[in-house]
Amino acid sequence: MIQITLIQIDNYGPWTVTPTPRTEPDLQALQSRLYGDLEREFGAHGGIVFFNRFDNLIAVSNGMDYDDHKLIQDSIRNRYPITISMGVGSAETAAEAQKIATEMIQNGGGAQSSERCEVLNIDSLVEDDDSTVQIAHIDIDDITGSLTDIETAFDTSIKVYEVLYELMVELNKAGGLCFFIGGDNYMAPSNGISEDELRDLLKRVDEKTNVSLKAGIGRATKAAKAADLADIGLEDIRAKTVDDSVEVLYEKDL
Amino acid sequence: MIQITLIQIDNYGPWTVTPTPRTEPDLQALQSRLYGDLEREFGAHGGIVFFNRFDNLIAVSNGMDYDDHKLIQDSIRNRYPITISMGVGSAETAAEAQKIATEMIQNGGGAQSSERCEVLNIDSLVEDDDSTVQIAHIDIDDITGSLTDIETAFDTSIKVYEVLYELMVELNKAGGLCFFIGGDNYMAPSNGISEDELRDLLKRVDEKTNVSLKAGIGRATKAAKAADLADIGLEDIRAKTVDDSVEVLYEKDL
Amino acid sequence: MIQITLIQIDNYGPWTVTPTPRTEPDLQALQSRLYGDLEREFGAHGGIVFFNRFDNLIAVSNGMDYDDHKLIQDSIRNRYPITISMGVGSAETAAEAQKIATEMIQNGGGAQSSERCEVLNIDSLVEDDDSTVQIAHIDIDDITGSLTDIETAFDTSIKVYEVLYELMVELNKAGGLCFFIGGDNYMAPSNGISEDELRDLLKRVDEKTNVSLKAGIGRATKAAKAADLADIGLEDIRAKTVDDSVEVLYEKDL
Amino acid sequence: MIQITLIQIDNYGPWTVTPTPRTEPDLQALQSRLYGDLEREFGAHGGIVFFNRFDNLIAVSNGMDYDDHKLIQDSIRNRYPITISMGVGSAETAAEAQKIATEMIQNGGGAQSSERCEVLNIDSLVEDDDSTVQIAHIDIDDITGSLTDIETAFDTSIKVYEVLYELMVELNKAGGLCFFIGGDNYMAPSNGISEDELRDLLKRVDEKTNVSLKAGIGRATKAAKAADLADIGLEDIRAKTVDDSVEVLYEKDL
Repeated sequence: MIQITLIQIDNYGPWTVTPTPRTEPDLQALQSRLYGDLEREFGAHGGIVFFNRFDNLIAVSNGMDYDDHKLIQDSIRNRYPITISMGVGSAETAAEAQKIATEMIQNGGGAQSSERCEVLNIDSLVEDDDSTVQIAHIDIDDITGSLTDIETAFDTSIKVYEVLYELMVELNKAGGLCFFIGGDNYMAPSNGISEDELRDLLKRVDEKTNVSLKAGIGRATKAAKAADLADIGLEDIRAKTVDDSVEVLYEKDL
Repeated sequence: MIQITLIQIDNYGPWTVTPTPRTEPDLQALQSRLYGDLEREFGAHGGIVFFNRFDNLIAVSNGMDYDDHKLIQDSIRNRYPITISMGVGSAETAAEAQKIATEMIQNGGGAQSSERCEVLNIDSLVEDDDSTVQIAHIDIDDITGSLTDIETAFDTSIKVYEVLYELMVELNKAGGLCFFIGGDNYMAPSNGISEDELRDLLKRVDEKTNVSLKAGIGRATKAAKAADLADIGLEDIRAKTVDDSVEVLYEKDL
Repeated sequence: MIQITLIQIDNYGPWTVTPTPRTEPDLQALQSRLYGDLEREFGAHGGIVFFNRFDNLIAVSNGMDYDDHKLIQDSIRNRYPITISMGVGSAETAAEAQKIATEMIQNGGGAQSSERCEVLNIDSLVEDDDSTVQIAHIDIDDITGSLTDIETAFDTSIKVYEVLYELMVELNKAGGLCFFIGGDNYMAPSNGISEDELRDLLKRVDEKTNVSLKAGIGRATKAAKAADLADIGLEDIRAKTVDDSVEVLYEKDL
Repeated sequence: MIQITLIQIDNYGPWTVTPTPRTEPDLQALQSRLYGDLEREFGAHGGIVFFNRFDNLIAVSNGMDYDDHKLIQDSIRNRYPITISMGVGSAETAAEAQKIATEMIQNGGGAQSSERCEVLNIDSLVEDDDSTVQIAHIDIDDITGSLTDIETAFDTSIKVYEVLYELMVELNKAGGLCFFIGGDNYMAPSNGISEDELRDLLKRVDEKTNVSLKAGIGRATKAAKAADLADIGLEDIRAKTVDDSVEVLYEKDL
C-alpha cells in the first residue's frame, strides 16, 4: 500500500493578485522555497515531495501520521504568508491513492475558496506492516552528449518536457504517477507496475519521442529509501553492470 | 533587443552520484533553493529567472552586466556545494538570444566535463537605449472550476503539462520561449511576436488541448517590469475589462 | 535527563579564507541558512537548536537517536559547501550534558583540523522514560516602551547583550545554559534549576543591569514542547494572570 | 559619510503570540531566513546587513536609494508572514547615522503599534562622491587552540559574548558600532576611528577580558568591499606579514 498526500496552497490564485498582482520573481522565490521546505519536512520522516504544479504538491508519505502532517502545516503558517491544506489517501496504486487524497481536499472546499483554510483530511494511513513504496527513477540515455552539449538549451527542454508528458500519460494508464525532478530525470511512484510492464511502457515512449529511456526501480517501506534504491539501479544500468533498460532493487527487510 | 543568460550547474550529473547516489529529497531541496536564490539575485537587478530544467536555468537579464553576473556566480560558490557557469547572448528574439547564450556555455566545455568550472562567457550585452523585453503571461481559463476542484490532482497536472509542451513548440516556432511558472501559468519571453500572432498561436493550442488560453503581454526595458505589466493585462482579461484573449501593456517611458 | 548535541562546522575558519577571504555577506547568508535548516531538521523531531556562535551550534535533542543525527549530517553535506561534526551527551544538567557533548567532538579532532570530517560521536542517549527538558524563556519587561521606541537601536542592543552576558554567567554557575533568541528574548535549558533559584538569579541580573527580567519555565519530554510551555508561562506573566517573575508549566503526561 | 539602514519587523512581538505563542523553532527559522534574505538583498547592491537583534537589523547601505529599499520591503511582504519598516540616516560616524535611522523609524510609529506598517523613512542618502565606509573585522587570537578545542562549547561562548559586550561599549563611545558575525568574529562600522584609536581600544578590551584581539580595517565606497578589505588585513596579521594588531587597507580608487 502506498500513501499519498496532496498539498494545496489555500486560496493561492486570488492571493497572488491581491490587492494588485504580486511581482513574479517574488512568487517564484516563494514557491520554490515552499517546495524546498516541504521536501525537507517530509524528508525528515523518510517521505518525498514532488513539486508537481507548485501550488499543488504531491508527496509519498508512508510512515507519517496525523501529527507529523499537522506539525508541517502549522510550521508553514508560521513562516509563510500563505497556508496549506492537505488530503491523505492510501491504496494499492499511486494513481488511486492520489485520487482519494484529492477527494479529501476537495471535500474541504474549493482551491480558491476564501473560506477554506488549513484543511487536513485523512482518508486512511498505511499500517507499517502493509507499507510498500515502489518508485522508478527514469532518465534519458546520454542527454548530455546527444542534446545538452550540441542543441540549444530550449530545444533540449522541449524534448525533456515532451518525454515528461508522454510518461505522465502512459504511467497514469498503468496506475502510476510521474514527476519531473530536474535535468532529464523523472520519478514515478509506481506500486503494482511490474518490470515487464515498465520496460514496455518506456519503449512506447521511446518510439513516440525518439529518445532512449531507462529506469532504476526501488521497493522499500518508505519513499526516500525506495528512491535511493532506484538511483542505485539506474547507476547499475549506466555502468552497464546490467544489460537491460530496467532494474529493480529491494530494501533488505522487504 | 532581449538579453538571455543561460545558467548551468557545472558537472552536476556526475556530482549527484559521487561517491554514491545522493538522496533525492536533498537534491530536490538543493535545486529548489538554488532556483529561489538565483531568482532573488537576478530579481534584485530587475531580471527574472525560469527554472527550466533546474540544472539549466534561463534568465532574462537585460540591464545586467559582467560584474552583476560575476557577483552571483561567486556567491553561489560560497554557499553551495556546486558551482555554476553562465553564457549570455542578446538578439531580436528570445529564441535567438538563448541560442547564442547556449553556444557561449558550450564553448566553455561540456556540461559533464570535470574540467569546466565557472565559465562566464558573454557574447553581447543589450545597451540601455536598445533594451526591450516582451513577456506574455499565459493561463488556462477557469482551471479551478473545470479541473482542480473536480478532477484528480494528477489528471489536472497532465493537462497542464500537455498545454506546456504545445506552448513550448508553438512559441519556439515563432521565435519565443515558454516556461511553466506554477499552477496553470506559463511565461513566454516573446520579443517580436505580435498580439495577432500570439492570439492565433493560443487558439491553435486551445484546439489541440481542449482548453481556453488567454495572455497578458508586457513590454518594458527590464524583465520583472514586463512580467508585472503582463500580470496586469491578464487581470484585465479575467475581470473582463477587455474583450479579447490577449492584451498588451507598455511601460510608461517606452 | 537532558540530551545536548553540539554541532560544529568542520574546518570552517580555514575554509572561509581559502583560497582568499570569502565575502562576508555570503558567509553570513550561509551561516544563517545553515542555522535555519538545522532548526527545521531538529524541529521535525521535537528538538530545538540555538545558534550560539553559528559555527558551533547547540541543540537540545531528547528523543533523537543516531540515525536521526546521521540523516541531518548527510543532508548538510549534500546541500552545503561545508560539512558538520556532532557530539552528543546526556546528563542531569544542561551544562554537564554540553560538556560531554563538547568532549565527544574534541575527541574526534580539532575544529580546524583538515583531517576531521563528519565526526558523529555519541556518549549516551536519554531513554524515553528518563527524558525531561526544562527550558526557561526569559525576557525584559517592556523593552519596547523603555528602550526600543525611545533609545537608539544600538543603545538598546548594548543593553540586550549586557543582559545576555550576565545571564550566561549566572545560569552556567547554576548548571544551565543560556542563548539569545532575538529581540529581548533568551532561552535557558535549565534542568535542575528550581523556580526559587531562577527567581533569585534573575533578580541578581536585574540589579547588575538595571532591567527587570521575567521567565516562563516549561518542563516536557522534548525541547520544543518545553519551549512552548515556557512561552505560555511568559504570556501569563505578561497578562498578569500570575503575580510573580517566574511561572512553571508542565506537560500533561509528565 | 556612512549610510545606515535600520530594519524593524512591524509589530513582531504581538504577532509571535497571536492567537497563541508560535512555536520557537519556527520563529528561529523565520528570523534566520529573514536575515539571510536581507543579507542577499543588500549584498546585491554592495551593502551588508548585521542581524543585531534579529527583529531589529542594521545595514550599511551606501549606494542604495529609495527604490532599492522599496523593492526589498515589497519583496519581504510577498514572501513572509510579516512586514518590515526601514529608517535610513547618513552621518560622519556610524553611531550618529544609526541614531538618525532610529529616529526615522520611531517617527513612523512604535515597534509594537498595530497601525505602523511598512514605513520607509529616509533622512538623507550619501552622495557617491562622499561615500566612504570603514569597517573593522576583529577576532580573537588563536581561539581554536586556547578555547574551542580545550574548553566546553559554552565556556567558549561566554568568553566570546563577554568580548562582544565590551567591544560594543568601547566602539560606541568612539562613534562606532559593533556586531557579532559568528565564531570569534566581530564587525565594526567605524568611520572616523583611526588605527591608533582602534589599537588602544582593542588593548583595553584585551585587558578587561583576558584575550588578545586583532583587527583588519577596510575603507571603500561600499560596505561589502570595505569588509572584504578588512578580511584581507586580518589575514595579513594572521600570516604575520604585518607586525601589529591592526592593519588598514584602502579601495584602489579611494
